[in-house]
Amino acid sequence: MRDIAVFSGSAHPELAREVCAHLGVPLRPTRVSRFANDCLEVQLQANCRERDVFLIQPLVRPVQEHLVELLLMCDAARGASAARITVVMPHYSYARSDKKDAPRISLGGRLVADLLVAAGAGRVLAMTLHAPQVHGFFSVPVDHLHALRELAAHFGQYDLTRTTVVSPDLGNAKQAAAFARLIGARVAAGAKQRYPDDRVSISSVIGDVTGRDVIVLDDEIAKGSTVIELLDRLRELGPRSIRVACTHGVFAAGAVERLSEQPDVLEIVCTNTVPVPMDETAEKTGKLQVLSIAPALAEAVRRIHNGESVSALFEHS
Amino acid sequence: MRDIAVFSGSAHPELAREVCAHLGVPLRPTRVSRFANDCLEVQLQANCRERDVFLIQPLVRPVQEHLVELLLMCDAARGASAARITVVMPHYSYARSDKKDAPRISLGGRLVADLLVAAGAGRVLAMTLHAPQVHGFFSVPVDHLHALRELAAHFGQYDLTRTTVVSPDLGNAKQAAAFARLIGARVAAGAKQRYPDDRVSISSVIGDVTGRDVIVLDDEIAKGSTVIELLDRLRELGPRSIRVACTHGVFAAGAVERLSEQPDVLEIVCTNTVPVPMDETAEKTGKLQVLSIAPALAEAVRRIHNGESVSALFEHS
Amino acid sequence: MRDIAVFSGSAHPELAREVCAHLGVPLRPTRVSRFANDCLEVQLQANCRERDVFLIQPLVRPVQEHLVELLLMCDAARGASAARITVVMPHYSYARSDKKDAPRISLGGRLVADLLVAAGAGRVLAMTLHAPQVHGFFSVPVDHLHALRELAAHFGQYDLTRTTVVSPDLGNAKQAAAFARLIGARVAAGAKQRYPDDRVSISSVIGDVTGRDVIVLDDEIAKGSTVIELLDRLRELGPRSIRVACTHGVFAAGAVERLSEQPDVLEIVCTNTVPVPMDETAEKTGKLQVLSIAPALAEAVRRIHNGESVSALFEHS
Amino acid sequence: MRDIAVFSGSAHPELAREVCAHLGVPLRPTRVSRFANDCLEVQLQANCRERDVFLIQPLVRPVQEHLVELLLMCDAARGASAARITVVMPHYSYARSDKKDAPRISLGGRLVADLLVAAGAGRVLAMTLHAPQVHGFFSVPVDHLHALRELAAHFGQYDLTRTTVVSPDLGNAKQAAAFARLIGARVAAGAKQRYPDDRVSISSVIGDVTGRDVIVLDDEIAKGSTVIELLDRLRELGPRSIRVACTHGVFAAGAVERLSEQPDVLEIVCTNTVPVPMDETAEKTGKLQVLSIAPALAEAVRRIHNGESVSALFEHS
Amino acid sequence: MRDIAVFSGSAHPELAREVCAHLGVPLRPTRVSRFANDCLEVQLQANCRERDVFLIQPLVRPVQEHLVELLLMCDAARGASAARITVVMPHYSYARSDKKDAPRISLGGRLVADLLVAAGAGRVLAMTLHAPQVHGFFSVPVDHLHALRELAAHFGQYDLTRTTVVSPDLGNAKQAAAFARLIGARVAAGAKQRYPDDRVSISSVIGDVTGRDVIVLDDEIAKGSTVIELLDRLRELGPRSIRVACTHGVFAAGAVERLSEQPDVLEIVCTNTVPVPMDETAEKTGKLQVLSIAPALAEAVRRIHNGESVSALFEHS
Amino acid sequence: MRDIAVFSGSAHPELAREVCAHLGVPLRPTRVSRFANDCLEVQLQANCRERDVFLIQPLVRPVQEHLVELLLMCDAARGASAARITVVMPHYSYARSDKKDAPRISLGGRLVADLLVAAGAGRVLAMTLHAPQVHGFFSVPVDHLHALRELAAHFGQYDLTRTTVVSPDLGNAKQAAAFARLIGARVAAGAKQRYPDDRVSISSVIGDVTGRDVIVLDDEIAKGSTVIELLDRLRELGPRSIRVACTHGVFAAGAVERLSEQPDVLEIVCTNTVPVPMDETAEKTGKLQVLSIAPALAEAVRRIHNGESVSALFEHS
Repeated sequence: MRDIAVFSGSAHPELAREVCAHLGVPLRPTRVSRFANDCLEVQLQANCRERDVFLIQPLVRPVQEHLVELLLMCDAARGASAARITVVMPHYSYARSDKKDAPRISLGGRLVADLLVAAGAGRVLAMTLHAPQVHGFFSVPVDHLHALRELAAHFGQYDLTRTTVVSPDLGNAKQAAAFARLIGARVAAGAKQRYPDDRVSISSVIGDVTGRDVIVLDDEIAKGSTVIELLDRLRELGPRSIRVACTHGVFAAGAVERLSEQPDVLEIVCTNTVPVPMDETAEKTGKLQVLSIAPALAEAVRRIHNGESVSALFEHS
Repeated sequence: MRDIAVFSGSAHPELAREVCAHLGVPLRPTRVSRFANDCLEVQLQANCRERDVFLIQPLVRPVQEHLVELLLMCDAARGASAARITVVMPHYSYARSDKKDAPRISLGGRLVADLLVAAGAGRVLAMTLHAPQVHGFFSVPVDHLHALRELAAHFGQYDLTRTTVVSPDLGNAKQAAAFARLIGARVAAGAKQRYPDDRVSISSVIGDVTGRDVIVLDDEIAKGSTVIELLDRLRELGPRSIRVACTHGVFAAGAVERLSEQPDVLEIVCTNTVPVPMDETAEKTGKLQVLSIAPALAEAVRRIHNGESVSALFEHS
Repeated sequence: MRDIAVFSGSAHPELAREVCAHLGVPLRPTRVSRFANDCLEVQLQANCRERDVFLIQPLVRPVQEHLVELLLMCDAARGASAARITVVMPHYSYARSDKKDAPRISLGGRLVADLLVAAGAGRVLAMTLHAPQVHGFFSVPVDHLHALRELAAHFGQYDLTRTTVVSPDLGNAKQAAAFARLIGARVAAGAKQRYPDDRVSISSVIGDVTGRDVIVLDDEIAKGSTVIELLDRLRELGPRSIRVACTHGVFAAGAVERLSEQPDVLEIVCTNTVPVPMDETAEKTGKLQVLSIAPALAEAVRRIHNGESVSALFEHS
Repeated sequence: MRDIAVFSGSAHPELAREVCAHLGVPLRPTRVSRFANDCLEVQLQANCRERDVFLIQPLVRPVQEHLVELLLMCDAARGASAARITVVMPHYSYARSDKKDAPRISLGGRLVADLLVAAGAGRVLAMTLHAPQVHGFFSVPVDHLHALRELAAHFGQYDLTRTTVVSPDLGNAKQAAAFARLIGARVAAGAKQRYPDDRVSISSVIGDVTGRDVIVLDDEIAKGSTVIELLDRLRELGPRSIRVACTHGVFAAGAVERLSEQPDVLEIVCTNTVPVPMDETAEKTGKLQVLSIAPALAEAVRRIHNGESVSALFEHS
Repeated sequence: MRDIAVFSGSAHPELAREVCAHLGVPLRPTRVSRFANDCLEVQLQANCRERDVFLIQPLVRPVQEHLVELLLMCDAARGASAARITVVMPHYSYARSDKKDAPRISLGGRLVADLLVAAGAGRVLAMTLHAPQVHGFFSVPVDHLHALRELAAHFGQYDLTRTTVVSPDLGNAKQAAAFARLIGARVAAGAKQRYPDDRVSISSVIGDVTGRDVIVLDDEIAKGSTVIELLDRLRELGPRSIRVACTHGVFAAGAVERLSEQPDVLEIVCTNTVPVPMDETAEKTGKLQVLSIAPALAEAVRRIHNGESVSALFEHS
Repeated sequence: MRDIAVFSGSAHPELAREVCAHLGVPLRPTRVSRFANDCLEVQLQANCRERDVFLIQPLVRPVQEHLVELLLMCDAARGASAARITVVMPHYSYARSDKKDAPRISLGGRLVADLLVAAGAGRVLAMTLHAPQVHGFFSVPVDHLHALRELAAHFGQYDLTRTTVVSPDLGNAKQAAAFARLIGARVAAGAKQRYPDDRVSISSVIGDVTGRDVIVLDDEIAKGSTVIELLDRLRELGPRSIRVACTHGVFAAGAVERLSEQPDVLEIVCTNTVPVPMDETAEKTGKLQVLSIAPALAEAVRRIHNGESVSALFEHS
């Protein structure tokens, strides 16, 4: 069996270290140099020749820096005769650019998939893609994990008999519906309206939330403004309690604070697919809960390396 | 300017003729031969050399025959030195295979896109893809039209002040929401529940339908069983009226009859992206309305040929 | 060594089972679903990850269904991270579309080869291609077997001292000549003439057949009309006996019956590269002999899997 | 319309000049430099930018020099921003490597086709390919001319009522059969036998040649030994007269002399797809007739450039 | 003739405007959006369909942002059916990563070339690449301009009879030698030495500089430390005067100041391939001279668009 | 572990045998046939299936023959199902065509790299490429060795305290500088001047050579005229001694003689990357020393086969 060699870019070394600890293999060092003209150069500092190489890098802020770094890592591994290059991308942020809803716009979700393949990626391990169709943007095999199991385990500590899972967006409610089925809850979704001034906002919540324990679920929370807009609509309907959950806690500046300040939000739950800032506010209110998906990623990497079924482990249950 | 040359496969020659009539160009003859061993051979029977070739073929029943025929048409046009090959695919039925929701399944929506490019297709003109992300499955430019304008024009004859557009599936409600915004209506959606025996069915309708004029909207209706299941749930909520609409009236055997027999369904509206069987039942009940998208396709073809903006014409309005 | 995993499409499961029995490995289950809109979906129901996958599917009637099914199988195996995908195609019927003898026609033999590669096929195991040049249509390695050894073993039971092998077509007589050399016989061929009305038919047989034991040999017999036309010419020359042989007994409806009814045809010999219908007529006359090429295919698969020379086994001898 | 720019490699500049004269366009100069280390460099010495570039080069002796030169010409034209690059290859000698008849051999016919495309060739104009299937080795459009019309015009000066066209090889008799149909003659072919020492030679001629006016027809004559071997067999059957014809008069050293010395060979006819050496012997016996295909090539180039149908001109008639 | 459409990314809009002014065409607007998760989306805000699209973007600080933006612009233009996409990249900073001088490092110069092609770039217009070999990293046509003519015109105001052009690096002295030939000067170069602690620095200047008017020439100046190191060596040799010149005045923070502070540096000359910061220091000392290459770029764009020879204009003279 | 299989083309079988001897594996036989029409066919005469195939062929005179032969060898190995194909190209002579210094010229260095990949090469082992950037012309992994260590070991027998390494060309002095650092010597370089008649020649030597022991170092010596021109300049400066060294002793006809006749040239040192003609003159003067790089190549092949680091062995030291 070819040896495994795991490298991390600079986006989320903590997660890479945690995954390697679970795998029981060392995290190999990567050197990223920045030249005076701002160009990057990557050196993988351990033998890659005929190795089964895994490159861990979620596409988080600063996204462009981390993306180019990842492309250079792929190129370095390819040039160094890696037997196989698997990109472990716990958060594929460009997946949100998945459709052409305006003329002459870029389709980043497909383009970045093609760039990774052009740079030498031979397979991808991704988590909770914005839409399941994004899987099809890649011309190489993709193992697509999700964090619903981790989230379900967390919420299993509560009484879920009166729970409704609410998707902020009617058009992307599939994940919320799957999660609701998983924990035996009902589902609801925000519906949007177009105003005369062409602004689009959440005008109503369709589904049963009055007197219910609400879990707002999205794949990614960045600014949090959609969630806050949804909270306004929810309050008009009198839910019994509100919790907020997502896989990717991207949390732009102030977002955790803004959400934590909502007095009726009891809890904000995310995973560590991205580095979550545990700043003062987050610690003071104590509302932010970060679940680790490192065990799941490590098990997937182990199975990919050993040629065992990944779907057997991670399929919806 | 290079001359235009339009050919039709055997899937829907009526539509091709209608498109050509709008364009004011002849429909060029195509010969499809079937050898004794059941293989097909295509001959495009007009000069393609340096022409701007359009091949019109929706992927309708028998789908595999029409798909291979279309691939052979692309190959013939390429071999005949066409300057550009545009596949006009008013119904891309394989778009429904757009995600991996089970281990080791084919991803037909992406595969067929790649096959078309491998066969020589240089661009695609599609209509109402099952999910907008399917656009990104193609590595060549796609012009993606929709029939919402045609449907809106049809329903504009009615009073729409108490209308709710209902999507059978919560997860694909985006189109219904867009249509609702277009005609100033509300939106609702069927929600699915998983039963102990692993069966999944529509358990409820979330959103406001009681006393409302309901338009059930889906992208494609084939067997119609999802719609009929939805009707059962709707009736429990007392709508004022029910109409059914879709872009692609695929209508498997008996589907039109089954839907027409629902006494409270006032109308079934679809377009001619696929050849709709106007059989006895359909004619007897008189409930089936087929709208023509040939003018829209012809205008798109004309603009593609002339290098004019297609989005300018067909963008959401 | 990577494990082997053999799957069969729906074209010829009996042959696949026979090959697996010779290999001593289980035939893994394949699920082919047909959606209401007539699209297919394939699920390979055993782990493919890092496996040496073989997909067995001759392109027989209905050819387009079986071709698309095979392409979807390739796609599913690729997406499931197969280490290598070998398409075992005992009959490549599209090989007959191997040249452009009319303007603007499709070149199916090359196109389908490209489609298989686009779908993920990494190598091909084929049998008795219509022309040896078809090998060069594939951009991936091809192992090209033939059934001449099986046919020679069969005819070895007869006295071959006065035998002439007759090719129906002068232009494709190479295989007949090779077979004649293999069994120490002479060779002859039908010659075609173009009539004033542009019809082309066999006008004469060039070579020595009078008083000879004739074996008519073609790669594929479908309708059988070419053979029957040849029989008319042969009879004018007074052969001592007539037998008919081919590798691919495609036999369109009524073909076996039509050939069996020829009183002077003593025997019709083919192999099971395709499923041969053993219907009433065939059984009644008892003229049809089907030879199994499963042992040869199994041995080739075993050698491919083990990295042993295939040519060492199957080269002309 | 983009301007045309015609260049010639060093293989056959006379033909290129003749083609340009028929086209009424100048032959643009090409500089081929050879470095001290024996590498070649090509400079196209006229503007190619956005031009419709034609590169004329038959693959004749020294073949490897001319092939690499042609590849460098394609590369230079591509790098110089040619709008379209058409390789005019009147003799594609590598087409003879069209099948794998021994283990682990190269398949030059397909490989060179791929190399040309890798070097930038966008289309090919070829003449009398060894087998029509070679057309399918190219992934770009091919216009495949033949010289049967020129040959037929030449032989039209004779009484053809008792003519038989003889192919040296039974397996490649299709072209001979086509030519026979074109001039209203019969067809015959040499049949090969394998001797105990594994030598293969022409053992007999099948078809009617006794007392006939024989035209031996092959696509290419190089050493001429196959033809001379065939002549031995023919003489045993008492033909009335013998003429030898081919498209590509490659004629290795001494071949014309050897053939001319055959007293019963009245004439040797070929075309100028390759530079035919008009040496002393050839002139002395006066048996060698070289027909020009420059008018046909020029007309094809003109039609390709203008986007007119080439098949309309050159199809079998 | 297809219309031209010129767009600029956010790297250097001033240059783009200047180029468009010289061309007499409008600069089309580009919208670059940044989502809350830091991903970019590009919209080209003018019709690209069948247009001859030019995208102007030097890869300057922040390089990764500008690179991804440029890739998204290519993707948007391709998806919008541009007839041709030319990337105008006045500074290709990644060209400095042009060789593997350490194990397992990325080769950014080749990788970024491939990424541009993967994103849809059809040709490239570049200026003063770090090494001329970088041209060969691109698989699409490149027009490679240089600024030697502009620099020579500038220095033509001085008496050049005692001038020596000095390259800081012996290994990249080709450009300096070419410039010296252009202005009739001598050439010299810094030579590097490896110290026991593995540090490499300029140990001497080889060539004649004593009492000469020195022009230090490099392709790019970023931090300026190499130039300053060279100045130390030069002073030991007693030059008569010192001027510093480069094509790409990248000038990292403080670099212009640091160079201007050198009392014996009379002048720092660069071009506007990159946006040069005209800050206080630069203005105070008045030593920085920025030459415009916009006229040269505009003329090249015009010739590319019109299909005229670019080399005719810009070749070494 | 897959077995290794080493083949040699006809360019340099002695080197291949020497490499195999060091590896302790047999050199497998290759059959190269030349048809009467001058086309080549290659047969690899040992099983390649799933083997780790190495093809040894420097591109030496006749270069085009050896190049096409190598391409056919790659094609044969690919068609024979090699697991991996490594081209061992000790001299990549086309690397000298590495830039476009004239309009519309071919870029042979990049083109041949692409041709090798198109023919099936999966990786390359090269030695002392003309410029390090040529590495980036290949889209597959390259291991790039150099012979500086071998040359240094040779010169280590002399007192090197007063040594200067001289590069004939200022623009390619990097290798000379590296070698100088390796042996603790100084570096100098020839500088070229353009004369009014456009001739370019070495006008001076920049750097310290008076009274020094000079080693003239180039990557390749073919005609030797550049070296002889340099010697004229050197003599004007009074060196103490002169030796000439290169990696690739291509030596066109008479070159060794011409160099040996220079009375002050004490020694001409090269390696056996190419077959060096040990003719009478060379033997008579006894000045030519050929160092073997077979041990280095063998060790690199061994490490590539075993997946060990190659850079660890061959990096600059």
